[in-house]
Amino acid sequence: MLRIQLDELQRTIEQALLRAGLGPQQALQCARVHASSSCDGVNSHGLNRVPRFIEYVDKGWIDIAAESTLVSALGAIEVYDGHQGIGVTNALFATERAMEMARVQGVGIVALRNTTHWMRGGSYGWHAAQQGFASICWTNTESCMPAWGAADCRIGNNPLVIAVPRTEGPLVLDMAMSQYSYGKLQTTRLQGQPLAYDGGYDSEGRLTRDPGAIEASRRILPTGYWKGSGLSIMLDAMAALLSQGLATNQIDEIKQGSGTGASQVFMLFDPRQLGGAAVADQIANSVADYVQASEPAEADSRVMYPGASTWQRREDNRQRGVPVDEDIWEQVQALARGD
Amino acid sequence: MLRIQLDELQRTIEQALLRAGLGPQQALQCARVHASSSCDGVNSHGLNRVPRFIEYVDKGWIDIAAESTLVSALGAIEVYDGHQGIGVTNALFATERAMEMARVQGVGIVALRNTTHWMRGGSYGWHAAQQGFASICWTNTESCMPAWGAADCRIGNNPLVIAVPRTEGPLVLDMAMSQYSYGKLQTTRLQGQPLAYDGGYDSEGRLTRDPGAIEASRRILPTGYWKGSGLSIMLDAMAALLSQGLATNQIDEIKQGSGTGASQVFMLFDPRQLGGAAVADQIANSVADYVQASEPAEADSRVMYPGASTWQRREDNRQRGVPVDEDIWEQVQALARGD
Repeated sequence: MLRIQLDELQRTIEQALLRAGLGPQQALQCARVHASSSCDGVNSHGLNRVPRFIEYVDKGWIDIAAESTLVSALGAIEVYDGHQGIGVTNALFATERAMEMARVQGVGIVALRNTTHWMRGGSYGWHAAQQGFASICWTNTESCMPAWGAADCRIGNNPLVIAVPRTEGPLVLDMAMSQYSYGKLQTTRLQGQPLAYDGGYDSEGRLTRDPGAIEASRRILPTGYWKGSGLSIMLDAMAALLSQGLATNQIDEIKQGSGTGASQVFMLFDPRQLGGAAVADQIANSVADYVQASEPAEADSRVMYPGASTWQRREDNRQRGVPVDEDIWEQVQALARGD
Repeated sequence: MLRIQLDELQRTIEQALLRAGLGPQQALQCARVHASSSCDGVNSHGLNRVPRFIEYVDKGWIDIAAESTLVSALGAIEVYDGHQGIGVTNALFATERAMEMARVQGVGIVALRNTTHWMRGGSYGWHAAQQGFASICWTNTESCMPAWGAADCRIGNNPLVIAVPRTEGPLVLDMAMSQYSYGKLQTTRLQGQPLAYDGGYDSEGRLTRDPGAIEASRRILPTGYWKGSGLSIMLDAMAALLSQGLATNQIDEIKQGSGTGASQVFMLFDPRQLGGAAVADQIANSVADYVQASEPAEADSRVMYPGASTWQRREDNRQRGVPVDEDIWEQVQALARGD
C-alpha cells in the first residue's frame, strides 16, 4: 500500500475542497478531519470519503454557504440548526461552542439539527480531549440495520463517542451500533475471509460470518444483538428530542445520501471545573492502567483501553506516512488539480 | 409460580425494611423500587434482593443514617457524596435534584459518588419518564467481567439507562455491559438450557453457550465483544471523573459486596424547556411507531421498542399479581414479621 506524508495528504485534500467551492477556513477544517482520520487508520471516513463529499456538494445535498444558527439557549444547553451545511464544520463549531460553555460552568451541551455527515465521530472526541475536555457525542443516521427481531432496516448506525482526556494519551471510544460496518464487510469479503464473529443474517435468516451473504441480505447485526438495537433506538430518540430535529424515520425520507439531515448531541465537560485536571488525570490513568494490566487471554497479546491502538497507529503513520488506496489517492489528486 | 398482589408485595418489603432499621420514608422509597422491579419482571433486583440488602445494612456496608451531601454546584452540574448511604434513596434524591435543575434550565446533571447499589437502574429512567423527563443515567460497579482480550475480571457491568417520555408509554433502555448477567446464567443452567447466543468462554478459552461452563470460568462476554468492553471502560472513567469518585479499580478494593462505593451520573432533560412536551411526544411516537412497524424476522413475532415489553408485563402483573419465588417470599415475610 502507498504511504503519503500526513501534511501532503492534508494539503491535497484541502486543494480538492477549495476547488469544490469551500472557503479557505472550511477547506482547512475539513481537510484536517479527513487527513487525520486516514492517519488514525480510518480511511473510510478519511481520504476515501473526499470524492463522495464533493459529489454531495455538487448535487446540492450539502449547502456550503450555510452556517449553524442558534435556535434556543438555556444556560448549559443550546440548540443549533445546521441548515444542511457541512457536517464537519458544523460538528467542530458545536464542539467548540460546548467547550466554551463547559469552561464557564463545567458542562456545555450543544444539540445540532439538520446537519450533514460528520465523517468520523471520533474526530470530535479526540479534538476535545486534546484540549483537556471530556465528551459524550453522538449522531443519528438514516436506517442501515434491522431492529432486533426485524427483517427490514429501520434503525441507524448512530455512532457514539465517549472521550476522557489523559496526559499520556486520552481514552477515546468511537462505536457504531452495528457489530460490523458495511465497509468492514466489503474489505473482509475482498480478502476472501470470514468475519471473526457473526456479523448478520444470510438470506435464510441464519446468523453468519460470511460477509457476502450479509451484504446480500442487508441484515447486519446490531452489536450485542438486542442491546445494540435498543441503544441505537434510544440514541436516535434522544438526539431528535434534544435538538428538536429529525429522527431516523424522517431522515429516511430525505434521500440525499448518508447522514443528510442528522441530529447530533455534543456534551462537553471541563475537568478543570470538576475536581481539577490533576484529579481527572489520576482517574484516567488508574482506569487505563488497570485495564492494561489485565492477564491476556492469549499469549503474546495485549489488553488495551479504548483509543490506545489508534494512538499507536497515528504515531507510526506520522513517521512512516499514511497508508492510502492508490486509486483513490489518484482520484483526489486529480480533484485537487481540477482535472 | 406464586403470584402476590403488588400492594401486598410492597407492604411486606416495607415492613422488612422498617425492621432492618430504615426510617419510614426510606423504607417506603426502597420498597417501591424493589416491588415495582419485581412487577416489571426484574425479580433479581426486586424481591430477591431484599435479604441481601438487609444483610449489607446489618454488616454496616450500607450506612442507613447517611444522607447525600453537596460537594460542588456549577449551575447545570452538581456533585454529591453519598457517604455509602442507601443506594436507592441516594439515586432517587439525585434523580429528583437533577429534575429540579432541568425544570429551570432544560438540563440538570447530578454526579453522585460513594453511593451503594442502586438496585434496578431502569427504576430511575421510568421514574423520571413518568414525570415527563428524558434521562441518561449510569453507574459503575466492581469488576465482574474481563475486558476484551483479557482472562481476568477488571471491568464492571456498568448499567446504562436511557429513557424518553411518551404519553402512550415511555421508551426505556436499561442495559448492562455484559451480554448476559450471572443471574441469567444461573436461571438458564437450572432450566437445563443453553443460552440463545454465546455468553462467555469456557475454561479452555472457547466461546460457549453453556451457562455452567461460563460460571466456572468467570469469563462472561461483554455485549458486542470489544464494543461492550470499551463502553464499560468509558462509562466507568466518565462516572468517576464527573463525580470525582471511585473508578472500578478502586471499588474492587472496598470488598463490601456489590455496588458499594459506586460512582453514578444522572442527566435529566425537561422537554417542556426544549421544544415543548407535544413536540417531544411526537418525536417519541414516531420513533416507537417506526420500529414497531418493522417486518418481523420470524412469523408471529413482534418488533418492539425498548421498554414496551416491560410495560406490558407490568400491566399484566398488576392485574394478575406479581410472580415471585416461593422460598424468597417466605424469607422476606419472615423478615417482615421479625422472626
